[in-house]
Amino acid sequence: MKRKKAALVLSGCGGYDGSEIHESVIALLNLQKLGAEVFFFAPDIRQSGVVNHLTGKPDRLERNVLEESARIARGEISPLSKFRAEDFDVLVFPGGFGAAKNLSDFAVSGASMKVNEQVADAIKAMLKLKKPIGFICISPVIGAKVIGDGVKITIGNDPQTASAINAMGAKHIDCTPDGFVRDESKNVYSTPAYMLASDTVQIDRGVGAMLSEMLKSLK
Amino acid sequence: MKRKKAALVLSGCGGYDGSEIHESVIALLNLQKLGAEVFFFAPDIRQSGVVNHLTGKPDRLERNVLEESARIARGEISPLSKFRAEDFDVLVFPGGFGAAKNLSDFAVSGASMKVNEQVADAIKAMLKLKKPIGFICISPVIGAKVIGDGVKITIGNDPQTASAINAMGAKHIDCTPDGFVRDESKNVYSTPAYMLASDTVQIDRGVGAMLSEMLKSLK
Repeated sequence: MKRKKAALVLSGCGGYDGSEIHESVIALLNLQKLGAEVFFFAPDIRQSGVVNHLTGKPDRLERNVLEESARIARGEISPLSKFRAEDFDVLVFPGGFGAAKNLSDFAVSGASMKVNEQVADAIKAMLKLKKPIGFICISPVIGAKVIGDGVKITIGNDPQTASAINAMGAKHIDCTPDGFVRDESKNVYSTPAYMLASDTVQIDRGVGAMLSEMLKSLK
Repeated sequence: MKRKKAALVLSGCGGYDGSEIHESVIALLNLQKLGAEVFFFAPDIRQSGVVNHLTGKPDRLERNVLEESARIARGEISPLSKFRAEDFDVLVFPGGFGAAKNLSDFAVSGASMKVNEQVADAIKAMLKLKKPIGFICISPVIGAKVIGDGVKITIGNDPQTASAINAMGAKHIDCTPDGFVRDESKNVYSTPAYMLASDTVQIDRGVGAMLSEMLKSLK
């Protein structure tokens, strides 16, 4: 059997200003356990900000999303501009504030947010081919904005984020961190991860179950 | 039963100039699966260098080991100066060049390397209490230098690193990435991880088996 190809879209390296590291590695681990080949992508843009993860305070330095994402990818990463939906079976977005600050501006603009054009294009292209797309943690807000059209999606149970999701034309469904939500008609999946999880074991369960179902849907 | 306490010592965030991210997260995941509470530590020192992980080239910027390690630890990390062996059941070192550049200078000095004093003190204190210490990937060179005394240790099968380990008074044992080496008399464990592993599944097996054995040895 040909190995399935998964694209993971990162947004930096570190949950306060980039991709949440545990979610990203646990997605990678589960995809490799499921026999998939994993390819990393990130937009080649300046981070919207840099946060000192020790103090939680903003840093004056500048960092680049693709360069920092390369830390999680061990150097094996491509600019998101090179992503072609035809070449991949599944597309996955880990969480972290990078999803709400670099891939979109949800962190500042809420429901009236803009999504990075390459991110929106990648999602639309997968959607057109009816290929599964998975959103982890806070990244479902991106799916809500780009897909809309009543797509069922979860970020756990945070009322403010859930109502923003509904305001963007998606339908928020409450979910526990070890579970996931599937929109069958659109082949869109989501799981709360650190929106609710208290440790990596719960993330491993939720993300693992979601990815397993995404790959099963291909058969 | 009281939960076991594990200390993970990080050396930055990213395998070329800090802690290898996959190894760190997979160690965390396996420790939490085994029911342990995990506490992160890192020395509060300047990184010996910064590497752009996209290009592999040195960067002119400066970064701090504790601040960057905090990205993997989601902000919950203490300076290594605060580590007290009495408070922990196991001590674990993930790999990455940070172990050979920040926790020690093995990357430039080989067998005549120096080890960061706080790192050496932490290892010696655990050793004195006969508590298990685990080394992943390249970090066993630190164990070889600090412990010496014929301690059995592995970095896989790289001949040059193995001979440096022997030159420092330890005894290198060849090992596959899904296995680990145990020195029973000293309660010291090691596993090759990315010194040999081709994916995270192998790391999960080797690191998982090692940590499971380390925790079992406490009963």
